[in-house]
Amino acid sequence: MKCSFKNDYSEGCHGKILDVLTSTNLESQDGYGEDEYTQKAKKLIQKKMNNFESDIYFVSGGTQANLIVVSSALRPYESVISAESGHINIHEAGSIEAVGHKINTIQSSDGKIKVEDIKAVLYEHNEAPHVVKPKMVYISNSTELGTIYKKDELTKLSKFCKENELYLFMDGARLGSALCSKDNDLTLKDLAKLLDIFYIGGTKNGALLGEAIVINNDELKKDFTYNLKQKGALMSKGRVLGIQFATLFEDNLFFELANHANSMAQKIAKSIQKYGFTFLCKPQTNQIFPILPNILIDKLEKQFDFYVWKKVDEDNSAIRIVTSWATKESAADEIIDFIMDKYQ
Amino acid sequence: MKCSFKNDYSEGCHGKILDVLTSTNLESQDGYGEDEYTQKAKKLIQKKMNNFESDIYFVSGGTQANLIVVSSALRPYESVISAESGHINIHEAGSIEAVGHKINTIQSSDGKIKVEDIKAVLYEHNEAPHVVKPKMVYISNSTELGTIYKKDELTKLSKFCKENELYLFMDGARLGSALCSKDNDLTLKDLAKLLDIFYIGGTKNGALLGEAIVINNDELKKDFTYNLKQKGALMSKGRVLGIQFATLFEDNLFFELANHANSMAQKIAKSIQKYGFTFLCKPQTNQIFPILPNILIDKLEKQFDFYVWKKVDEDNSAIRIVTSWATKESAADEIIDFIMDKYQ
Amino acid sequence: MKCSFKNDYSEGCHGKILDVLTSTNLESQDGYGEDEYTQKAKKLIQKKMNNFESDIYFVSGGTQANLIVVSSALRPYESVISAESGHINIHEAGSIEAVGHKINTIQSSDGKIKVEDIKAVLYEHNEAPHVVKPKMVYISNSTELGTIYKKDELTKLSKFCKENELYLFMDGARLGSALCSKDNDLTLKDLAKLLDIFYIGGTKNGALLGEAIVINNDELKKDFTYNLKQKGALMSKGRVLGIQFATLFEDNLFFELANHANSMAQKIAKSIQKYGFTFLCKPQTNQIFPILPNILIDKLEKQFDFYVWKKVDEDNSAIRIVTSWATKESAADEIIDFIMDKYQ
Amino acid sequence: MKCSFKNDYSEGCHGKILDVLTSTNLESQDGYGEDEYTQKAKKLIQKKMNNFESDIYFVSGGTQANLIVVSSALRPYESVISAESGHINIHEAGSIEAVGHKINTIQSSDGKIKVEDIKAVLYEHNEAPHVVKPKMVYISNSTELGTIYKKDELTKLSKFCKENELYLFMDGARLGSALCSKDNDLTLKDLAKLLDIFYIGGTKNGALLGEAIVINNDELKKDFTYNLKQKGALMSKGRVLGIQFATLFEDNLFFELANHANSMAQKIAKSIQKYGFTFLCKPQTNQIFPILPNILIDKLEKQFDFYVWKKVDEDNSAIRIVTSWATKESAADEIIDFIMDKYQ
Repeated sequence: MKCSFKNDYSEGCHGKILDVLTSTNLESQDGYGEDEYTQKAKKLIQKKMNNFESDIYFVSGGTQANLIVVSSALRPYESVISAESGHINIHEAGSIEAVGHKINTIQSSDGKIKVEDIKAVLYEHNEAPHVVKPKMVYISNSTELGTIYKKDELTKLSKFCKENELYLFMDGARLGSALCSKDNDLTLKDLAKLLDIFYIGGTKNGALLGEAIVINNDELKKDFTYNLKQKGALMSKGRVLGIQFATLFEDNLFFELANHANSMAQKIAKSIQKYGFTFLCKPQTNQIFPILPNILIDKLEKQFDFYVWKKVDEDNSAIRIVTSWATKESAADEIIDFIMDKYQ
Repeated sequence: MKCSFKNDYSEGCHGKILDVLTSTNLESQDGYGEDEYTQKAKKLIQKKMNNFESDIYFVSGGTQANLIVVSSALRPYESVISAESGHINIHEAGSIEAVGHKINTIQSSDGKIKVEDIKAVLYEHNEAPHVVKPKMVYISNSTELGTIYKKDELTKLSKFCKENELYLFMDGARLGSALCSKDNDLTLKDLAKLLDIFYIGGTKNGALLGEAIVINNDELKKDFTYNLKQKGALMSKGRVLGIQFATLFEDNLFFELANHANSMAQKIAKSIQKYGFTFLCKPQTNQIFPILPNILIDKLEKQFDFYVWKKVDEDNSAIRIVTSWATKESAADEIIDFIMDKYQ
Repeated sequence: MKCSFKNDYSEGCHGKILDVLTSTNLESQDGYGEDEYTQKAKKLIQKKMNNFESDIYFVSGGTQANLIVVSSALRPYESVISAESGHINIHEAGSIEAVGHKINTIQSSDGKIKVEDIKAVLYEHNEAPHVVKPKMVYISNSTELGTIYKKDELTKLSKFCKENELYLFMDGARLGSALCSKDNDLTLKDLAKLLDIFYIGGTKNGALLGEAIVINNDELKKDFTYNLKQKGALMSKGRVLGIQFATLFEDNLFFELANHANSMAQKIAKSIQKYGFTFLCKPQTNQIFPILPNILIDKLEKQFDFYVWKKVDEDNSAIRIVTSWATKESAADEIIDFIMDKYQ
Repeated sequence: MKCSFKNDYSEGCHGKILDVLTSTNLESQDGYGEDEYTQKAKKLIQKKMNNFESDIYFVSGGTQANLIVVSSALRPYESVISAESGHINIHEAGSIEAVGHKINTIQSSDGKIKVEDIKAVLYEHNEAPHVVKPKMVYISNSTELGTIYKKDELTKLSKFCKENELYLFMDGARLGSALCSKDNDLTLKDLAKLLDIFYIGGTKNGALLGEAIVINNDELKKDFTYNLKQKGALMSKGRVLGIQFATLFEDNLFFELANHANSMAQKIAKSIQKYGFTFLCKPQTNQIFPILPNILIDKLEKQFDFYVWKKVDEDNSAIRIVTSWATKESAADEIIDFIMDKYQ
């Protein structure tokens, strides 16, 4: 079987999570997120954020989190601003539009949004009531291109959004990887202050399933569970999500797993860089996008699983290599050795 | 701690499921339901139905299943007929309306729908285009009142629906319990013939989470995964659902668990009947609704957890007692003994 | 051709409206409701309400008004309470559900809602977040059964709604007829105080088309035009609506037309009463529902157009007779004479 | 008062329409589009198309027509392709998203779409089920930039759409102006063959209000009136729309009015061209976009009403001049003389 660098959800979950699921399995717990483990997980995350005012809810996946956050926050005529490459814009089968909202897109080469981009969108939407009213800014961290937001960048976005009555929402499906990037200077405590709402991804960082939605802005807190229930996201056995997040945040497991994923990707990136190859975007997290000769890519495809992301010119393309909490160092070495072998 | 008869989702899952989750945990599998276990589970269910033409998809919960089935099947102006007590009508926070469809309700004392009820709804909706156009009939089996459909009842409904171009959809959140009722004469093979679409509930019958949507009518098959993705129901680690259903249907575990739940409820029901108490509806499955003196209910509440369902008269109320795959015989005996003790 | 008592929209509009449309036809006016006539119409209505704080918008029809009011006011999980006979519930092809909201219905023999009915709905919806959250009460005046609300009734509803944070919304498609009923003691001034939002129907009271939405509650005012535009209700030639309402409210034309409609219906009602016939509901406005022998109805149908509303018993049915601003006294006399002739 | 070239809906309607509204005003007609005039208007349009199989419906405005066509034709996960400048994309306040559908946009300098553009969108959406499924192509004729489709262009689009199971939908809010352009070689007969669905705009071509939706593709015909009713578009006094279209299409009034609008715009365009000014797009219809020096624009604004459309460089901008059926030749001459006077 081929060694896979296709994504970060090919394996099950970290062993500790299975252990706790097993040891607590026959306990009788209340349903719908009223169980002890969900309560415990909430407190552990609040503690990491040093903020006990934020509301926290657990849902089963990222698309679900995104559509609930957007539909619960916006009025029918309000829209959400996103990079064109944003997951909500291209990879969620129209889920945001299905709950009634337009996405205003921004061209971005690195998957990130800047204040000037938002300003341009607002400027184009000054003809009320003929146009939608932008009311939320969606960013992902790490982005769909593996890049991350620095603290000063996020601070500027946050300030601008507050001044312009825009909600700032971070899709953190790969937040662990972002916060563990060697380039990162943000903490969960910062996120509790700079964002109106965000979520912490479990599915791609060692859980079987689960994302933790964190609501910092009071305006967005009211009646939130109604939205969960209505969209089919309120699991009757909420313990399944609670136990996983309690395990990930009880010690430092969440960050250890992300660190491992990042270090595997960085090891591969460094090796590739040695041969003079460049990257579509700076390799900062567990997703890297090296630009390689098509001839080399053809050979790689016989041995490894990954996505060819984008044609760069006649002879070269960018590929996406994704590592995860479960990537073995031997697998990283295997692709490194293979490239060294074939390229030289 | 009080012994609980509140619902059938208080515990985790059957041990075998945890075993398989653990033994397969580090295998690398494709995402989004393309994994081997999902394929295996589909085949096992198809085999039990003796029908390999039906499409099968796994989702995380019942509300999610309901809203996806309805929204994928109906045109904007089409409506779904349901008993007033139907889960979609009262206990899903408006999920069906949120995807745009009206529910036409039918009064029903036992939670079931009859052909005459549907006829009456159709008759009331003959003023096109001023009214909605009923296009689907939603039934639950077992119902929210613990009752079940007999084969002749379902056959009549099915025939009428076909003649009137109505889709017949069965919510099977508690289908295991229905099919294992001693009064039952339906099989999965029958359901594959009589229903356009239905689902088999895992969450309330031994799984951590998961419902299996089964599509029999070709008209409803096209592009179904788009609907799953758009509503946030396409789990990236689809293996979590596949493994559970493969385990439940590999041998006869699914039915064994439902049988256990039913037998615990029936044991309690028989004991209660001995004292001359009656029931809101005939006790057929794992949900029973005995009508008891309020004085006795007060005493029971100190020792056991359950819902007081409905006031019947000044002195008596119906309570809901729910058993599950995890209910211990000792717990059933405890409530039986308690009633004997207090009542005599 | 048969004389018609089927509805109140069979003719065009009052001649004065055509005159003003003609005399102002070639004036160049701003679009989208920014024209002078729309401004004038708003001020005239505000003056009749003695309230210049209310926002007023004109739309083309009742279903449009209803769906915009409900969708602009409610959060996704919030619902609207209506009599089962309410127009939004049965005669708008699911328009409210299509914008995402559930209607909680109340059985009512006269089409009206009482505080106790609302209390019962709230009581049944106390299981947050599994149920919808009722947030608005929809009433129609006159109702679909021709009855009206008295000032004390509306005052009680208003008080209860305020205390329970429910918006009170009146569908006034036939408000003119209601306010001109001899039983009426409400004024537009009262409505400005007792209702959060309502509309004044033009289409059924002498206009070609047009309903005036009046927003009294500040919470519902923000960004309202966005909703109009998004739902296709912001007419580019808004003058067409403005001119009609300016004409109806410049003098007393709106009330004169409603008075005429009512007096025609009352004349018929009195005549019918003389023969001892009863009515489904008290005949108060321009819609009356006499209960007549089927034999007589058969004869009437040969000469007149009207709806047979409801079977009352084996031999008798209620029919609906509607008069309008355009009903000629000779037509009223014709049906009166016919009944006298055939019945005696 | 300034002479206005801001839009084509500043005046009321052509006098003949008012005449017919007046002469038929007191006739009793059936409601909801069942009146004689609506039937007559349908037949007149069918005759002009030489196609009596197409279904025709009249609605009050363009946004309403667009949202009904899209929502009635598409499944929840299907999307509509449009030029970025398309009216549905930027000037309808999110109406398409509000009925649940994503718009896939195409960059276009002249407001038109080509087969290659559509191919590119389809190529980008080949990852089912993670992306939306494009199912309809929306074009406007004339476009928002005043350009038109030639017969060979539309034939290519039509062929490609058929081959790829895409519905081709034309927004004809300014179809009269397009068909009367001197560059035009399309007829209503062609449109009946090449398009799945389209509409003929009345509001901007001499009517008070009204667009005629024409459905050629049988797949889109079923139950269409339900959609009209549900979205609030089924006017009870449908005669108001029927009379207007019957009048516009009885003789050749519809085309005469469009011809007049075009000839006024072309007269101005020719005059401007004489001074060497260029245009944003070729001036083909009643909307022209000359690029003028900002100094000249400043002077023009004191005397005339129009939109400054777009900054072209530091010293020049494009303005939009719109003429209509009601534009007087003296007004056209006035702006021509003014430019001659100020520019020389």
